[in-house]
Amino acid sequence: MYKFEESRLIMEINGKKPKRVLLQLPEGLKKDGLRIASLITNKTSSEVILSGEPLWGACDVAITEAKTLGCDLIVIYGHAPFMKVRFPVIYLEARYEKNISKMLAKSYDNLKNYKSIALATSVQHIHQIAKVKEFFESKGIKVSVPEAKGHSFYDGQVLGCEYNSLKTLKADAIFIIANKFHALGAALSTNKPVILLDPFNEEITNMSYEKNKIIKQRGAAIEKARQAKKIGIIIGTKIGQKFGSFESVKEKLKKMNKEYVLISMSEITNDKLINLHDIEAFIELACPRIAIDAAALFDKPILTIREFSVLCGDISWTELLEKGFV
Amino acid sequence: MYKFEESRLIMEINGKKPKRVLLQLPEGLKKDGLRIASLITNKTSSEVILSGEPLWGACDVAITEAKTLGCDLIVIYGHAPFMKVRFPVIYLEARYEKNISKMLAKSYDNLKNYKSIALATSVQHIHQIAKVKEFFESKGIKVSVPEAKGHSFYDGQVLGCEYNSLKTLKADAIFIIANKFHALGAALSTNKPVILLDPFNEEITNMSYEKNKIIKQRGAAIEKARQAKKIGIIIGTKIGQKFGSFESVKEKLKKMNKEYVLISMSEITNDKLINLHDIEAFIELACPRIAIDAAALFDKPILTIREFSVLCGDISWTELLEKGFV
Repeated sequence: MYKFEESRLIMEINGKKPKRVLLQLPEGLKKDGLRIASLITNKTSSEVILSGEPLWGACDVAITEAKTLGCDLIVIYGHAPFMKVRFPVIYLEARYEKNISKMLAKSYDNLKNYKSIALATSVQHIHQIAKVKEFFESKGIKVSVPEAKGHSFYDGQVLGCEYNSLKTLKADAIFIIANKFHALGAALSTNKPVILLDPFNEEITNMSYEKNKIIKQRGAAIEKARQAKKIGIIIGTKIGQKFGSFESVKEKLKKMNKEYVLISMSEITNDKLINLHDIEAFIELACPRIAIDAAALFDKPILTIREFSVLCGDISWTELLEKGFV
Repeated sequence: MYKFEESRLIMEINGKKPKRVLLQLPEGLKKDGLRIASLITNKTSSEVILSGEPLWGACDVAITEAKTLGCDLIVIYGHAPFMKVRFPVIYLEARYEKNISKMLAKSYDNLKNYKSIALATSVQHIHQIAKVKEFFESKGIKVSVPEAKGHSFYDGQVLGCEYNSLKTLKADAIFIIANKFHALGAALSTNKPVILLDPFNEEITNMSYEKNKIIKQRGAAIEKARQAKKIGIIIGTKIGQKFGSFESVKEKLKKMNKEYVLISMSEITNDKLINLHDIEAFIELACPRIAIDAAALFDKPILTIREFSVLCGDISWTELLEKGFV
């Protein structure tokens, strides 16, 4: 179902003639790793190494890994360009080619009461926007496609950490073609109803239940962290995942008479935190979706930098809800 | 029970005056992270970041992490110097201060039938050697302490990947003060009986049962990998864990008509391999103890470079047994 753009891949590599390519695939596409690596080996003169590390987003460009391995080109599947990097990178978006007409027709039931909607998609589905717009307009609904802002590359595109284009728009609801991860991000970033069409699982979901569940969990995590006397400040080492300054967090914890320790980490996992027995709560200066979406995988509360602002009194809980969690 | 050498730590940091220290602790000492970090903060003018990544050995010096974080000194606990690194590092060995007299007396039962023994320890117990030597000599057993070879820093010291000092020595048996990990390494590297005194768990173990169990498992893994048509060659990216050349493995797999793909990885975990559906077996060019000791954690067979030599016919199974697995 994914469009791997094999011809463009080979053409670009044969144009750039790298000595050694580092191939990065998201977990969902890792199964195609051997096939794509063999294609590069057979159709170009470049050597290829498949990165065995997870690729969590366009933020996760493995420049250090590439340099360590002597690679002079990175190929990233499943993402559009995200940030300026000082390394040659080819992005292949792996568009998902499913016909969503039936699901679209079905989704109308959830949207017919709105006069205007805004469209959003993750990059895999960005080519569906014109069709979706046409469909809802034919039903008399006003449809807008938010202009790309921040890290978004395309109009209408959202990323796990980027929903700014949705925050200021005027529409009664947001219709998103993505998976639950992106839909939840949209719901937690705005105060509008979010309706998800998930082409992978063929489901249509109003995200309000999931959103409210997560908001309750986040409130509880903040209160649990408030009781903690010993706090770990997790500094993410991924170049594309920099959120907040640890200097400022340190100063605020000092004022609150909390003990703290700076902790560096690449992938943040419970296994890595489990031996830090005496630390009762963590603040992560890395991808905010780790704390929010993976909370169930961790024994101790982990707050995002924005949630920490509530803990230290810089903003109120109500302000956080208005501003959004992402 | 561990000796943290706090005074030397503070003295050395105050001498070197680094701006920012990266503190690396093995998992077993992570619980002391906050305490040691606070000590550095309070007694020196340096900032300190605790590495949240696991530290699996003296081979695991986090130079890239330190550079990314702007650290100008690394402090490593639990290990002796291992390799030359182009970065300032302080090693603190975290000696284990338990009185082992009773266990030593008890261990005599397992050793009384040998005329000569060689002593080995992991670095935490290296200070026990003189006492142990004296004890067995008083019982009329000839005791030798093998001279440091390869990566060993002290006479008598073994590491997870370094048992060369034990391979050529003349003794009826090896007596090792360590945990099962190092004792198993010694047993798999030599053809002598290995008796373990484990001060942590207060156990004395003849390693022959464990050794034979692992040898059977490794034989089965090689045979399973022999059936595989698609093989992943895992290139470890840790600077201190370089084993074998992927160029040579590639050429040999080509001759055997196997499909292959090069895969790079820092920590090697089943989670990272699980999505590579079609790859049936792996060869790892990283720490050999991952394949050998963690086999139960992986769904598919992973061979060390030495085991791969059996698979491709460079050496026989008997030669591997003689040469040793590590």
